[in-house]
This record gives sequence, structure tokens and C-alpha cells, in this order.
Amino acid sequence: MSILNFFGRAPKKSAEAARERLQILLAHERAGLQGTDFLPQLQREILDVIRRYVEVDDERVQVSLDREQHLSVLEVNIELPVSGQRR
Amino acid sequence: MSILNFFGRAPKKSAEAARERLQILLAHERAGLQGTDFLPQLQREILDVIRRYVEVDDERVQVSLDREQHLSVLEVNIELPVSGQRR
Repeated sequence: MSILNFFGRAPKKSAEAARERLQILLAHERAGLQGTDFLPQLQREILDVIRRYVEVDDERVQVSLDREQHLSVLEVNIELPVSGQRR
Repeated sequence: MSILNFFGRAPKKSAEAARERLQILLAHERAGLQGTDFLPQLQREILDVIRRYVEVDDERVQVSLDREQHLSVLEVNIELPVSGQRR
């Protein structure tokens, strides 16, 4: 996987477009069909952890969950306020 | 990004090779160079959260951190015991 393409595009460089972003991908590969799918619960707890480090506006959080037979992938995209950056 | 290639290969199907795996990718795109890089600390707390849901053997956890100018990517791969699966 290309890290440079992780966000689908290169980081913006202009000051106007300056944004901080945090992307979380959680993938759970299950051996059996009945494996517990704990990703949605995990997502809430991980967001709580992240809030200890940065300011997270609920309106700036996008979550998508993709469930397949043996693989669940949870993607969380968070746009962070640049003001939250410590300089 | 192709979800099917998330683990670099398709999930194994034979019973012998049955494994549960959890992969976590955390990417932090910083607007400035001095942005706080909190991913290593976040990693520990996220592992603590995951341990509430599944049994995690420290020897089965692989962590890599890739730091670039504006982007840090933390990758955590955890092999879960199949016995930990609730059936």
C-alpha cells in the first residue's frame, strides 16, 4: 500500500488549505463466520482516546464500515482544527 | 484503496491456516512541521482498548511507524488467537 496515497491525494501545502487530518483504518480478519464483530464498539472507544490528544469536532468525523464475509474494515476520517496544533 | 488488498493478500480459507487478525492504520496529516506527533502514545492506549475485546499476545503484535514531513503513519498488526473467537 502506498503511504503517499493513503489519503487519496498528497497533503495540501498552501496556508489557506492547511488542515490537520487523522485517518484510522481498522481491519478485522475473522477465521470463522461467527467471529465477534467488535469494530463499531472499538470505534467509539478509540475516538474517546483520540480526544485526549486533540480536539475532535463530532461534525468533522466521517465513519464508514465495510463488512464482508471474513473481513470487516472500519474507516474513520477526522478533520482536526489547525488551531489545535501546538506551536 | 482496495479493501481486498488491505492485508496484502486475500484471507486464508483452509482450516489449518485459520487465523484472526486485526490491523490498525493510523495516519496523521499535519499542516505544519511542528505539529504534535502523538501516534506512538496513541498506539499504546488503543492497544489497551483492544485488549478489552480480544486476547492480545504482546509477541503477536507488530508495530511500524513511518514519519514523513507532513504525514505520520502508524501500522499495528495483531495476530489474534482463534481460541479467542466467541462461537
